[in-house]
This record gives sequence, C-alpha cells and structure tokens, in this order.
Amino acid sequence: MTVVRPRVVSLIGGSACTPSQAQDAEAVGRLLAERGIILVCGGRTGVMEAACRGAVEVGGTTIGILPGDSPSEGNPYLTVALPTGLGHARNMLVVLAGEAVIAIGGGPGTLSEIGFALKVKRRVIALDSWTASDFAGDQAPILTAQSPEDAVEFALAKEV
Amino acid sequence: MTVVRPRVVSLIGGSACTPSQAQDAEAVGRLLAERGIILVCGGRTGVMEAACRGAVEVGGTTIGILPGDSPSEGNPYLTVALPTGLGHARNMLVVLAGEAVIAIGGGPGTLSEIGFALKVKRRVIALDSWTASDFAGDQAPILTAQSPEDAVEFALAKEV
Amino acid sequence: MTVVRPRVVSLIGGSACTPSQAQDAEAVGRLLAERGIILVCGGRTGVMEAACRGAVEVGGTTIGILPGDSPSEGNPYLTVALPTGLGHARNMLVVLAGEAVIAIGGGPGTLSEIGFALKVKRRVIALDSWTASDFAGDQAPILTAQSPEDAVEFALAKEV
Amino acid sequence: MTVVRPRVVSLIGGSACTPSQAQDAEAVGRLLAERGIILVCGGRTGVMEAACRGAVEVGGTTIGILPGDSPSEGNPYLTVALPTGLGHARNMLVVLAGEAVIAIGGGPGTLSEIGFALKVKRRVIALDSWTASDFAGDQAPILTAQSPEDAVEFALAKEV
Repeated sequence: MTVVRPRVVSLIGGSACTPSQAQDAEAVGRLLAERGIILVCGGRTGVMEAACRGAVEVGGTTIGILPGDSPSEGNPYLTVALPTGLGHARNMLVVLAGEAVIAIGGGPGTLSEIGFALKVKRRVIALDSWTASDFAGDQAPILTAQSPEDAVEFALAKEV
Repeated sequence: MTVVRPRVVSLIGGSACTPSQAQDAEAVGRLLAERGIILVCGGRTGVMEAACRGAVEVGGTTIGILPGDSPSEGNPYLTVALPTGLGHARNMLVVLAGEAVIAIGGGPGTLSEIGFALKVKRRVIALDSWTASDFAGDQAPILTAQSPEDAVEFALAKEV
Repeated sequence: MTVVRPRVVSLIGGSACTPSQAQDAEAVGRLLAERGIILVCGGRTGVMEAACRGAVEVGGTTIGILPGDSPSEGNPYLTVALPTGLGHARNMLVVLAGEAVIAIGGGPGTLSEIGFALKVKRRVIALDSWTASDFAGDQAPILTAQSPEDAVEFALAKEV
Repeated sequence: MTVVRPRVVSLIGGSACTPSQAQDAEAVGRLLAERGIILVCGGRTGVMEAACRGAVEVGGTTIGILPGDSPSEGNPYLTVALPTGLGHARNMLVVLAGEAVIAIGGGPGTLSEIGFALKVKRRVIALDSWTASDFAGDQAPILTAQSPEDAVEFALAKEV
C-alpha cells in the first residue's frame, strides 16, 4: 500500500507580534488548512499561536516543535506537540520540516532561520518580515508577499 | 475552541531486526492505530518500518523523525516525515515525543534511548529488547512485555 | 607546519556522587593531566567537577561542554567552558570528544551515554559504574576498572 | 585553587573564500593567538582553516567544533577537534563559544549564524561579510571592521 503524505509548510516569525501580524498569521494558517496542508512551527506564542489557531479552526493539522522537554509548553492549538529539549536548535527543525517556509515578522532569530532556510535550499516567503532588500548579492531570492493569500500561493506554487 | 490532541506513543528499536521482531512491530503499529494513537519513530527501516506499515494499513498516522536533511530518506509508511539534520541526536526527540516508549529489539543505540527515556521519566516497555534484569539497582522499571498486545496495553494503561 | 594535537579522554558520570566516586574522579583527572591529556566532560558538578579539579591542580587542561547558553554555569575548574544550548543532547558531544570514555557512578543518563559510546565505537571504561554484566549478549565490552589507575591505563592502552 | 580561563573568540565565515578573505582570516587568527586568546570555529576549510593556521603558527590554541562523528574531518591546524555529529546545528555552538563572533565572508549560512549571535546577545564583528546595512531596523549593531586589526580590537574591547 502507499501512504498519501500531506504537504507540509513551515511557519516562522515573532513569538511576540503586532495585531496585524497575528491577523496575517491566522489567515495563513487557515488558508493552508483549507488546502489540507500540515502546518509546522515552533509551537509557542505570537505568530505561531495565531497560525495554529487559524488552521485548527477549519479542521487543519498543526505540529509544534518545542524547545523544552514537555508537550505542555506548547500553545493550545497544536494537534501534535513534539518536545525536543534542544532549545534554540529546534528552529532548524522547523525550517527543515516544510517544502517552503513562511516568515511573518520576527527579529534576529527569524533572520537566522531565514538564512538557514536559504542554506538548505528551502523556498522562503516573507510577509511583513525580512525582505530581499535586506540581503546583499545574489544569495537567493526571498519571495516577498503582500498578503496571506500571496504568501500561501507562493509557498505552494510549482514554479516561482 | 479546543483541539483534541491525539495520544502519542514512541517506538524505538532495531533498524535491522529479526522476522519475529518485525512481526511484533507491525502488530504494535496496528494496535496503536486502531486506538487512534499517533506513532512516532525514527522513520527508517527495521522495526520502525514494520510498525509504520502496520499503523497505516489500518488508517493510522505515523511521524518519522529523520536524522538527515531530506524527507525522502524516510520509509514509505510515514504520514509526516520530519528531517532534523541532527544525526544520532534525533533519537532523543523520538523518546521525548510520546507518553510512553515501546522498544523492540535493538542494540546499544536502543539501550542508549532506553536510558534516556528513564532519565526523562517516560514509561518504557520492552518487547524482545533490553529487560529489567539488564539494569542494576533501583533505576526504575522497564516494563517487559511478552506480546504486542501487552506492550500496547502497558503503554496506555493509567497505572502500571 | 604541523600541530601536535593532545590526546583527549572523555569523562561521564554522576552529577551527584558519593565521596568515594568524587575521590576516584579527582584521581582520574590528575592522572590524565599528568600525561598531558585533555579532559572533556559535561562541565558541571559531581564526578565532573572532581575530575576537573584533579586535572587543573596539576596544570592540566579541561573542557566543559555545557547544556545551557552561558559559560558561567560551568564548574570553577574548566580551562574552556563551551555552552551548547542543547540541554540533554550535549551528552552525545561529551562522548564523541575523546578517544575513550571513562564512566564513574551515574544513573540512567550515564547508562544512556555508555550505550551511545558503544554505538559510535568509543572505548568505554567503567569505574564504580554500569558494568559488563549489565549488558546482555555480545554488545561489546565495557572495560571494568577497579581503580583510577586502571581506568586511565585502560583508556590509553594501545590494545585492550 | 582558581583556574585562569583564557578568553575565547569565535570565528565564522566562508568554508570557501577568496584569497583576500583567507589572508584576513589568517591575520585574525594570529592576532588573537598573540594575545593568548583561544580561537573556536567550525574546524573545516576556508576562513576557518586560514584562521587556525594563523593562530597555531604563533603557538596559539584552536578548537574546531565539527559537524560529523570523527575528529579526522577537521583541518590540520586544530589543537582540539570536537566532533558533534550534529551537522548544521553545530554552528550554534561555534557562535555560543566565544565572547565575540568575528565573521569573514560567507553566504546564507554565515548570515544565519550572525542572526543567531544577535539573538543570544553575542558581539558580532563583520570583516568583508554581512554588514549593518543588510539589517533593517534597530536589531542591534553588527560592528563592521575594515581590517583584521580592527576586527580583533572590536572583539576584545571593553566597550563598543
């Protein structure tokens, strides 16, 4: 038998965020879930929590990759809470999980994850986050989205 | 709204195994899936592959936590393939994922994971694997199961 | 030019220990240092602190691989304090550092590290720790030492 | 007794680099070693190898934090080779090791490490690498150096 493996998209960004970023994150979560796509994130607060909430509200599946030892530190909208005990290093796993990474808001930690995503050749979409103009040279495009709809479309498109 | 979070059980053991261990692993996967429990393992061969196969054959959900950078190195029976890039260290994540850890077969690597599971206070069930008599002193019980049915029952029981 | 690279031996064991284990650890540290060997350990308390103290008292070099983000959490007898932020996972790095691993005392965490050491084919010497009889089958020998002198000799011998 | 713990500075950057970057890296290694400072890096090629060579040529101490399981994958100018088995994740350890991080050259991986360094509040000095103008907003300064001498001075200065 063969397993139908759902597509997975990663979401990274501010564990603290503006209301506008939270709104965008919730919409991204919802749009992904409506397409049957699994959302993977760091499982905590801010844009992570908002996106998970948006996803599960329409019956979607969310996986939180947590920094500590216990599933209880995850936000309330996780279908699966995976404790790693790895602290900061768990962010690399969030990036590696999906075929694409959507970044919303965020500070130097998010920049670090974007850099890592580019290093491991994952497609990166930025929504109110670090933009292509922040990157010198020909490092590789970060796709800048203007809306949650664009972000999800860029994440899933065959070619960009 | 609240999310109903399925229970999760971890499976560890030989990436190479005997036919009997493979049979047991497949049964364990099936029994967990029949109860709606998510199976988490290292996503590769041997008892991992057998357990995943048993689970998905009855519609269960399996998550493979992989050592490399690519989901493609996972076995064919993973609902979700999570690459970690962490090599050996990903074994700690497999142990941390579930409320209980079922060990089938395996060598020193599996022993290492059992030791770690005891350290982080996860319940450990051994089926044709390292047994309580391998452990000196009062380190904590490893529950020894004689069958897949026992293994799953011990994993899920309220009190053992 | 070529660099003369000192030999490295890893020490693992109880972060809490008996006076006898502390005494043994201090002797092991001293004996290694007298031979110009670098001691690598988890950098914290118990046998780790005792061994580091024994080493630096005779001018030796110690490296502590720490679980958190700050060098300040290390014991006072570290020449180099390396924070990893990795929590439990840093134990694998302690095991990988040396050509041999000396285990003194310790609980399931130490057993986990011994299992991992065997998996990655590092030589393991146990002093008042888990012994060969704790391991079933032909997994590979753990060399059991009766004294700090034996432990260091086994660690450094060309053939055992 | 107290241990005099040498200062530690981390170096990151291109595993492939231009001759000019290699020259700068070698000078940085030498300047640090002349001040008795331990150099920590990823232990491989490019600016890492050049800096290590510069350091050991004047009697300095270098520590390479390696991605694989074996010390033999390190460059020939390492006093201590620490295998981590962690792949990409070992870059976080390089950043955490030193009181400051000097970046020379490098691509998205180096950017990722700079972002992480800012996140964990390590001082970052860029020499022919990602510059402050690559970073939007008030994320925290990256100190841009024009020469190896400046880079080392910024790394060690009490206040910047």
